[in-house]
Parts: sequence; C-alpha cells; structure tokens
Amino acid sequence: MKFFFEPRGIAVVGATPSKEKGGHIIVSNLKKGYQGEIFPVNPRYEEIEGFTCYPSVADVPDPVDLAILFVAAHLVPPVIEACAKRKIPGVMIQSAGFSEIGTQGEKLQQRAKQIADRTGIRLWGPNCMGLVDARRRFVFSTVTPSIWDTGLTSGNVSLIAQSGMLAGAFLIDLMSHGTMGISKVCSIGNKMDVDENDILEYLIDDPDTTVIGLYLESFVDCRRFMNLARGTAKPIVILNGGKTARGAAAALSHTASLSANGVIVSGAMAQAGIVEAGDFYQLSDYCKTLGLYPEILPQRGNRVAVLTYTGAAGIVSTDIMDKHGLVLSELDATTLNELKTIFPEWMPPSNPVDMWPGIILNGSKKVYGKAIEAVCADPGVDAVFAHCFAGGFSLETDLEMMAKTAGKADKPLFCWISGEREQVHEFQVSAQRFGIPVFREIVRAVECIGILLNRPLVDEANGLARSAEKIPKASTETRLRMLESEKGQLDEYLSKKVLAACDIPVVEERRVSSLDEALQAANHFGFPLVAKGIVQGVSHKTESNLIRLGISSIEGLESAVKDLQRTMQVQGDMLIQKQVEGKIELTAGFVRDPQLGPCVMCGLGGIFAEALNDTAFGVAPLTLEEALKMISRLQCQRILDGYRGLAPVDKTALARILVSLGDLGCAWHRIQEIDINPLIIHNGLPIAVDGLVLLSET
Amino acid sequence: MKFFFEPRGIAVVGATPSKEKGGHIIVSNLKKGYQGEIFPVNPRYEEIEGFTCYPSVADVPDPVDLAILFVAAHLVPPVIEACAKRKIPGVMIQSAGFSEIGTQGEKLQQRAKQIADRTGIRLWGPNCMGLVDARRRFVFSTVTPSIWDTGLTSGNVSLIAQSGMLAGAFLIDLMSHGTMGISKVCSIGNKMDVDENDILEYLIDDPDTTVIGLYLESFVDCRRFMNLARGTAKPIVILNGGKTARGAAAALSHTASLSANGVIVSGAMAQAGIVEAGDFYQLSDYCKTLGLYPEILPQRGNRVAVLTYTGAAGIVSTDIMDKHGLVLSELDATTLNELKTIFPEWMPPSNPVDMWPGIILNGSKKVYGKAIEAVCADPGVDAVFAHCFAGGFSLETDLEMMAKTAGKADKPLFCWISGEREQVHEFQVSAQRFGIPVFREIVRAVECIGILLNRPLVDEANGLARSAEKIPKASTETRLRMLESEKGQLDEYLSKKVLAACDIPVVEERRVSSLDEALQAANHFGFPLVAKGIVQGVSHKTESNLIRLGISSIEGLESAVKDLQRTMQVQGDMLIQKQVEGKIELTAGFVRDPQLGPCVMCGLGGIFAEALNDTAFGVAPLTLEEALKMISRLQCQRILDGYRGLAPVDKTALARILVSLGDLGCAWHRIQEIDINPLIIHNGLPIAVDGLVLLSET
Repeated sequence: MKFFFEPRGIAVVGATPSKEKGGHIIVSNLKKGYQGEIFPVNPRYEEIEGFTCYPSVADVPDPVDLAILFVAAHLVPPVIEACAKRKIPGVMIQSAGFSEIGTQGEKLQQRAKQIADRTGIRLWGPNCMGLVDARRRFVFSTVTPSIWDTGLTSGNVSLIAQSGMLAGAFLIDLMSHGTMGISKVCSIGNKMDVDENDILEYLIDDPDTTVIGLYLESFVDCRRFMNLARGTAKPIVILNGGKTARGAAAALSHTASLSANGVIVSGAMAQAGIVEAGDFYQLSDYCKTLGLYPEILPQRGNRVAVLTYTGAAGIVSTDIMDKHGLVLSELDATTLNELKTIFPEWMPPSNPVDMWPGIILNGSKKVYGKAIEAVCADPGVDAVFAHCFAGGFSLETDLEMMAKTAGKADKPLFCWISGEREQVHEFQVSAQRFGIPVFREIVRAVECIGILLNRPLVDEANGLARSAEKIPKASTETRLRMLESEKGQLDEYLSKKVLAACDIPVVEERRVSSLDEALQAANHFGFPLVAKGIVQGVSHKTESNLIRLGISSIEGLESAVKDLQRTMQVQGDMLIQKQVEGKIELTAGFVRDPQLGPCVMCGLGGIFAEALNDTAFGVAPLTLEEALKMISRLQCQRILDGYRGLAPVDKTALARILVSLGDLGCAWHRIQEIDINPLIIHNGLPIAVDGLVLLSET
Repeated sequence: MKFFFEPRGIAVVGATPSKEKGGHIIVSNLKKGYQGEIFPVNPRYEEIEGFTCYPSVADVPDPVDLAILFVAAHLVPPVIEACAKRKIPGVMIQSAGFSEIGTQGEKLQQRAKQIADRTGIRLWGPNCMGLVDARRRFVFSTVTPSIWDTGLTSGNVSLIAQSGMLAGAFLIDLMSHGTMGISKVCSIGNKMDVDENDILEYLIDDPDTTVIGLYLESFVDCRRFMNLARGTAKPIVILNGGKTARGAAAALSHTASLSANGVIVSGAMAQAGIVEAGDFYQLSDYCKTLGLYPEILPQRGNRVAVLTYTGAAGIVSTDIMDKHGLVLSELDATTLNELKTIFPEWMPPSNPVDMWPGIILNGSKKVYGKAIEAVCADPGVDAVFAHCFAGGFSLETDLEMMAKTAGKADKPLFCWISGEREQVHEFQVSAQRFGIPVFREIVRAVECIGILLNRPLVDEANGLARSAEKIPKASTETRLRMLESEKGQLDEYLSKKVLAACDIPVVEERRVSSLDEALQAANHFGFPLVAKGIVQGVSHKTESNLIRLGISSIEGLESAVKDLQRTMQVQGDMLIQKQVEGKIELTAGFVRDPQLGPCVMCGLGGIFAEALNDTAFGVAPLTLEEALKMISRLQCQRILDGYRGLAPVDKTALARILVSLGDLGCAWHRIQEIDINPLIIHNGLPIAVDGLVLLSET
C-alpha cells in the first residue's frame, strides 16, 4: 500500500487549469505539500500550474506510483486499463457515479474491479475524497485548498471514513477549530478494491499513527477486521453507522430475535478490544484522548482528582464520573497538607478540590500550579481533571507548566474550558500544543477520561493475537453423526442430545410415549418432575400450554400426562424431566449473522430474556477467556456474583457452555440457530432445561 | 419580589471609584443599562462615576427599592439593619464570607436572617453574583463589564443558579458564544432568605420568561417547588448537582436501600413534569430549544424528517434518534414527488433526505429551500432536522427562508452545523437571530428534538395543579388503631394486616404456633402452601432459611413445620399461606426522604429488585394518575404489558396499591418504611406476598 501513501510520482488524470474544478484543485493541493513528481494528464493542455501536462497516462515519465482520477465515470475503466499498462501500481478514483447511483454505476464499478482482478492494479475509491497526510502535508484530494494553508495540525491520529463528504467536511471542521492533531485521513468511498482492512493493516504498522478512528457503515470482512484489531496494542475507535437498521437475523429462536440493532456488531467490537463511539465528535474526542496519551496503559485505575474553580462544576463532574465508572481519588495526607498551604485557613481541602477561595487569596497561577503538583504526586490519583476559565475572574493558568508537571508524574491531565469565545479558542489551541485534551463539556471530558482509564487490556502477545480461527475438536463431528439425517427444527429431546454430546450440561430426562413409560421414568428420577409435550414445529412450549411444572406425586403425573395428551390431540411423545430448582434463569444461544458468521449469545433468561434485553454477543469460535469477558459484559453481574444468599454462578462453567455452543456451530455448518432457554443456575451451576437446535436444509 | 427585578432606585453599599473592584463594577454595570436612580453609598467619597455618593444608607433619597451590598461580611448585618430602617424592601448581598466558610460565617448569616425575620426585609444571597436582565439590560452584578457591551443577547430563557461562580462564568460563556438568548439570570448564592421557590414563582408569572432553567444543589422546600412546577405550562429544566452523593435513606428495607443516588429526586422531578439535564450545556441547550419553540405543545408526535448533505450523518442521526424515542417520518407521495424535482433521476428520495447529489445538480440554496418546503408541508413530519455546512463545498443555505418556511408550517426546525470555525460561528449567530436552535453535535441536537417532542403533557387545569396535599381518607386512621402500641419493625403477619386494612390485596394466610394449627390452616386453604417462620427482627427471611415453598401434601407440611421449628430453635410462630402462582414479581414500598418526606416506590421484585435497579419513585400522596405515570416510567414495560402469553398486569390495580402506600405513610407519621416484596402478579393482579412495616419510636 506504500504507493498510495508515499508515491514517488503522481499522475493526475483529468487535471485542468480551470480553477474551482476538482481536476485543478487536486494539482494545486499537491503543489502545496507533496514533494514527489506531479504529472497532470489531459490531452487538451500542455501545462497546468507550472507542471508539464501529458496527453495520456501512457506518456507520463518515471517515477509514477499513483494515478489520481477525476474524470467522468464512464472514462474510468479505460483509464485504469491504461494505468495498468503503464505499470502504475495504484489508482485513486475520486470521481463519483458508481455503485452509489444504482445499476448503471454498479456495472461500471464491476468493470473497473474486473480490470483490477486481472491486472493486479490496486484501486482506491471510487466516490471518495482521497487521502490527507497532515504530517507530510500530502493532500490527495479535491477538497478546497484554503484549509490546508492554515489548519493542518500534525498529530498521531489517523482516520478511515467510508463516507467521502463526511471525511471532507469533518476534517475541515476539526482542522479549522485547531483542536486536534491528525496524521492521515483516508476516505475510502465505495471501497470496491482497497477496503478498511487494507488501510487498517497499513496504519497499524505506520510509525506516524498511534491511534486509529473509523467511520464504517459495513464491514467487508469483519473477522479479518477483528483479527487485525486483536493483533495490535494501538487503540482503535469505531463509529458504526446504520446499527438500528440491522434487523434481527431471523425470528424463530430467542437468540436470533435478540440479535437486532447491531448488538452483535457491538459484541464483536468489544471482543476485539475496539472502542465504540456514537457520534462524530465523540469519535474524534476519543481518538484525540488516546492519541495524546499513548503511553497510558489500559486498566491503570479509575481514581480521578478534580480541580475546579467552582464547587458546582466539581459536584456535577462527580455525578457524571459515577455514571462512567470513575471515582474521586482519596487524597493522601501529604497532598492535603500541600493544598492547605494555598487554601484559606477556614477551608479543609478535599476532592473535588475547590480552588476558588485559594485563588482569591493567592492568585490563580500559583494555586493551579501548586494544586496540580500536589495531586500529581499523590499515588492515589490515576488522572487529573482540571476546570479552567478563559476570559475574566482573574483565572489565568500556566498551561505549559501544568502539562509539564502532569507529564513528569505520568498522570494524564484533562481540561474543561469555558469562558469568552476568543480566549476559549486560544486556550484550546495551546492545550493542543502542550498535548492536553481539552473539552467544552464536562460530560465529554469524563467520557474520555473513562475511555482512557477503563479501556480493556489488549493482550497482544497471548490471548487476542491468536490464530484466526481455532479449530473445534474433531471429535465433535463424530459425536454429531445423529444430525446427518435431520433438517429444520429439532425437537427438544434431540436438541438436548446434541447439546449433551458437546459437553453442555442438560437436565436429566426421558422421552416417553405412554403413561406407563412416564411412570417408569418417575420411578427412576423421583419427584418433583416436569412433563412436556413434544409437538413437531412448536418451539415456544409455554405459550402453547405444553409444560407441566412441579409434579410431585404419581397422581399428579397421571393427570399431567392425560392433560398433555389432550392438549396435543394426537398421541405425541412427552418428555419427563427432573425438575431443576434455581432462582436464576439465564439463556444462551448461537446464531449465524449475515456479516459476522457464527455468533454466540448469553443473557438473562426466562421472561426477562427479551423484555430486559440484558445480553452479550461474541463471535465464535471463542476462547474461554473471551467467553468470560462476554459474561462480564452483562449488566446483571450482581445477580451472578452470589446475590442475597444465592450461590454465585460458576462463570467458568457458563463460559465453557458458550465456547461449546460456538464450536458446535463452527463444526457443523448446517446448524443455523441454537437456543438454551432457560439455562437454570442450580447451586451455582448452569443446566440447560430447554433447548432448540435449528438446521438448514443443506 | 418586584423590588429586586424592577427597582425604581438602587443603593450600592460599598461603592468605590477604584476600578477593577467589585464595588466599582456594580456601579458601572448599572450605569450601562439600568434606567432608575443609582445611589452609591460610601462615607469616603462624594461622587462615583458621576453619581452623588452618600455617606450612609440613611442618607439615600427616594426612590430606593433595592440595596446591593458589597462590603466585608462582618459589616453586612448592621447595613441590613440600616436598610430596614430606611424602609428599603430588598437587599442583595454579593459579599462572600458566610455559611460557605464554616461556623463563623454561619453565625453572621444567622444574624442577618434574624434581622430579616424581625423586620420583613427580603435578603437575596449572600455569596452570589446577583441578577442580570438581558432584555432590560439590567446588570446587578460584580461580573466584569466588558461582556455586557457585546454579548447580551435578549431572549426568553431565564436561569436560576445556586452557584455564583458558575452563574457568572457560564453566562460569560453563553453570551460570548452568542448562541443563546437570555431573559434573566438569577444567582441566588447561599439563599438564606430568597430561595429558588421565590424566584421560580416570580419567573412563572414573568411575561418575559417562557422557559426556566435551574442549577440546584439542594431544595429548600421540594414540595413547594413541585407544586409551582405543576401549576404552570412553562417548561422547567433542572440540573441537580450532587445526586450521586445522596446515600440511601436507611438500610433496613429494600425500598430504602433502592433510594440512593438521587433516584427519589428524579422521580419527584418527573412527577412534576420537570425536564432533567445532566450537564451545564445540556441544561442550556434544553432551555434554548424550549425557549425557541414555546408554541410547540408536548406530545405532538415523534416523527422527524432528516435533511442531510452526507448520507453518513443521516445514518448516524437515525441511529441516535432510535435511542431517544424518535422515528423517521414516512414521507408521503406528494413530498416524495416534490423531492424528485430536485433530485437526479437515478436517485429515489427517502428519509433521511440525502440532498448532496441534488445539490451538485441544482445548487444548495435551491435544494435546501425546496426540501424544507416539501417536508414542512408533509403531515407526517413533526419536526425537521437539517444538517448544514459552513465554509466550502458550495453548501450555502438561506437560513432566513428556511426559518420562515418552517415557522409558517408550525414545524420546529433544528440544525446541525459543522465547518470552518468563523463561518460556523456566523451560522450559529444568524440561526439564533432567526430563532433556529443549532447544535455542533448530532447527539445533542437529537436529545433536544426529543426533549421538545416527547416531553410530558402538563395538565395545568386538572391533574397537576392540584391542591398541595391531598388528605388521605380519615377512615385509614381508624383502621390502623392496631398500630398504636407497636414500634420498630413489625413482623410479616402484622405488617400485612396493616396493608390489608388499607385495601392492599395480600395473600391469604394464618398465623399458627403448632403443627395442629398448621394442619387446620391447610384444611382451610388447600394445597399448595407456603410456610414461613416468624422471628423477631429478621426481615430477610430467604437468607435466614425461614421460608418453605411449594408444600403440596400433609406430609410435606409436617416436615416443613418441624424443619422451621428446628431452624427457629425457640418455638416461634409460623405463617401458613396459600402459595400464589405468578411469573412476574414486582416490589412496592414507602420511605421517608430527608428532603422530600413521604415517597412511594415500585419496581421489579424478587431477586431482580436490587440487582437490576428498575425502579420508579414518586412523592406521596399520589393521585391515581400520578401512580400510573410512575408505573409507566419503569423500563420493564414489555413484561407488564402481557409478555409471551402472560396476562397483562392490571396497572390500575397496581397504581391503587401505590396510592394506598403513600396515603398510609402520610396518615401515620410514625410509619418510616414499608416494603412489599414480592408483589406477585397472579392472573394480572398484584398480591402482596411478603410485607414489612417499620415504625419510628415516637
């Protein structure tokens, strides 16, 4: 991919001397910062912006590694052909008029792709804004030139955006507000050939990039994406557009109906250690934070010292921190004594540190300086959140000194700024210069502190950077011979046989077809028992009145069996099960996502499964550790951790079930969905009490 | 209160000619806009800023309605005394050094308050930034003068802030960013006399105020606050600081332990129709929105048309809307046809309306204009969300025309703006001028659309503007004679007798002390039964192993009774209850909050009560309608509304229980806490299966 990012020479096909047109802007943007050779291509001109203009791609001299195309869509395929012939390795197509405009454009795009497949030439775009490298000052884009003169702030955050307009517009916004340093912005457009994974792979190895942000509406290959993310310690932040439009994968099983609205994608992102954002500025703020503090390791602690000039903002910060998993540092005696030296006598220091009375007494620079010094030296402080005001109240601060103090102590410093407009902007720009993330809203600042301090550990060497696809035990296949002649929805009995064959604990049960057999089963199991009717094609037995719980005597069993037989009308089979006692009902399942393939789910079960939507999804196959992390993402941790005298749930046993479910689905490609609901927790151990396996036809 | 807001003359005590000092700034701020008489008071000067200076308050001539004090704290009480003598009705104390600095200041404050109580003079402050009236250009404050020259944008939003620094700093921020119109800002400081309720009452009647925003850390009288809010259709928005610091009221009952972290306050706010914000800019953005669209009635519908120049922002808006209870309008045929006239032929219009290809074809002004017109004419559109860009891409818009079109159609219009810094600011300022709320983040814009469209109906005439305290039925007192000799924690049997006496449905049960009596009870009730041991002082029977469920035979009862007697060691009494079958377990309760007094709770019960924290609180006494609204605030609506074949919960029956619980607590002041857990839903009807009543000593 280096020919895209660091080409030795660039041909601009469709270059023109008419100002304001894309074909001119590209050349003039190149002229501003690009150091290599620039070759405008257009048969109508001899010279553009002082560069010799060539009649065709074939005429362009060496060295030329990249062609940027800005010509009418229908001309794109022949130009690509010409580039391939000229041995140009990369083409960046900034023209629009392809798959985004429907069938006709789609055909053009396919023609272009065929040329790439045949010749090996790589295509970036089409319908994109190209590439901006703020460090090298390379602008391979049609975006208007004015912004590049003043705004390009060099940094270590690289962005990948599926939307061209968004990439261009947002970049102008970020740049002109001067509050974020950028390394590369890659607008990948329709990604017909070069896609997010190619760019991600390049940026992971790029020494100029320490954090990668993405806006994506779809994944070309989400598993490759996840594996790339797992294989690096560089933080990755993503905004997934279009999540709510992702309907449920199917509707038969609980698992499938719970998989709507992008929860599977969110599960996959969490599994790969990727941070999710919900809006554009949130994405850029997360990236900015992680880019400014690349050396702060994940999970360093969640204790924050808040320095404020107004008690109210300290209080509100504390409230918001509580929602984002952060706590106030308990300042130690040394820190409190240090603070006392700048506080009025009547005021005992505490956290949040309300500096205002001290500022009246000693001036703001001294008080901010001393306070930062004191809290940075405190071993109980993991991060410092300073509230600043620009434009009045004698609240000047020495940002450079503050940054240095925090830097020396290896404590990430965050600022909230408000005040008079121009002075706020100056503050933001100098904060950026000194490497301090600064925010206009407390809530965003706290979100970012949380993202930095609480982000998951990426175990690059071991767990996450594992081989792409773990192969499930070969023996699983053998054990599942019973499935070979089956298709569609398996009944509960057979479904649980499948689960049991894969070492998932299931309730003890017998399939019976008569009262006599039922009584024999009772004799074998003892009471209390459950009786269920098995009717082909009925998956929700509760609603169909096919379950009799709490049978505690022979008479009870007799009447339950007769009753079930009446309900089933035809003489169907029945299941006689030991009744499993347990207050906690969970659910677990397997589903094939159209984009992500085999996925595993766990969550609250029983009537709470769909109503409360406390679920976690993961992409199979899972490692045991990944399954444990999935479980830890459930909100109902208090219930799992030994609630009100109940035995704590054996999370390893639960995780093993999730691993098995995933392995089962990976091993048997005809398994479409699996439901275990309820998965009752009995004395801390999960037991599958009902199960459903759905097979595809072929 | 008019003498504070529209005084005919003002004495400034502590006035000084030394610039930069508060005593000078107040006079010079007054001079800029205040039209009445200005009387500096200071024995050391004869004239300040061109005004005659008086040696003492006694010497100030008529008319004088207000004295603003900026003198050392210890001088404040004698000056108040002098003001009272001079018959000045109001004093605004901007000096600090009172209760906020500890005991010594607290004493001074008490002395001042005593003078007010004795003389009837009203005191505003101390430790406050005073009052700013942007419409009249009255600035009664020590805040630096520069800002008032340029920034004071007149509007209809009034703010009340408990924190002085915050009020001043935030106001400067809002004003200098020029994106919000203000009516009055009231900084009430330590509120030793004039408090939030006095000001709220004034602003509710103020014709210049259409929306009121508050930052409060405590309520002087929350019930009065609620009643004021209920009595007006003016929207009220509040940011409550310090919610996470509000610990649980007590620890004995579930209800009390669930009442931490400000959930009671949030319940009270919701009950009074008050909108809650979580951060300062969120507060001001909510106020701005409600202030710009005072004529948009609550609950007008939640269907939004999104007009965008980039598909990505349309997709992200849709995702965020989904989280805030908003949906995309289904545009009707006329609208789609209108949009077709500005779209390229290959592009079928839909919502979000991606205007970019149309803009390339027809120019942005025409396309924005036509698109706004089309969606505003669509009866399926409740609000319009337009994405704009300032600074390039030929994306100019005619904001004035857009505002007029939307205004004519009575459709609230919201803008998201990004782009080049200066041009973004210009856009924000003109949007403000044309009355369009404009936001820098999609998520905030969507929050505000949600706040405007989804806010609760305030039924000024009927429900909410009810008399302050409904008196519970007199008969309740009579029925509860049994409590007169009791104190502390009542046992389950007596607790449920109390509940039953107040018409709360309770499980059928008998208190027994021997196996014989238990068998008689079984004979009376039939099986299945529950047996419980009653041990004085034990409230959590499950954890103490004092419950035997599902007893289905005489032998079972015998062994359960023996077992319980063994567990209780001494021969305690037992309860024999009919076993109530029901999949849904709720909980309900009563607690006395230190600030709010009697409060009622309902939520998910059983093991989920505390673990999932799905609860709603309300302030008692409740009307039936208020109780129903409380229930509607629970997240578990899907479970209540007839989930998976279960009977839907009779919400009116549930609401009656909540009303009764509140009445019970209001009628009997010795009732401290009540717990009903579980409240089992049996065939849709709630039945109290366990109960706990806690009485205070006196």
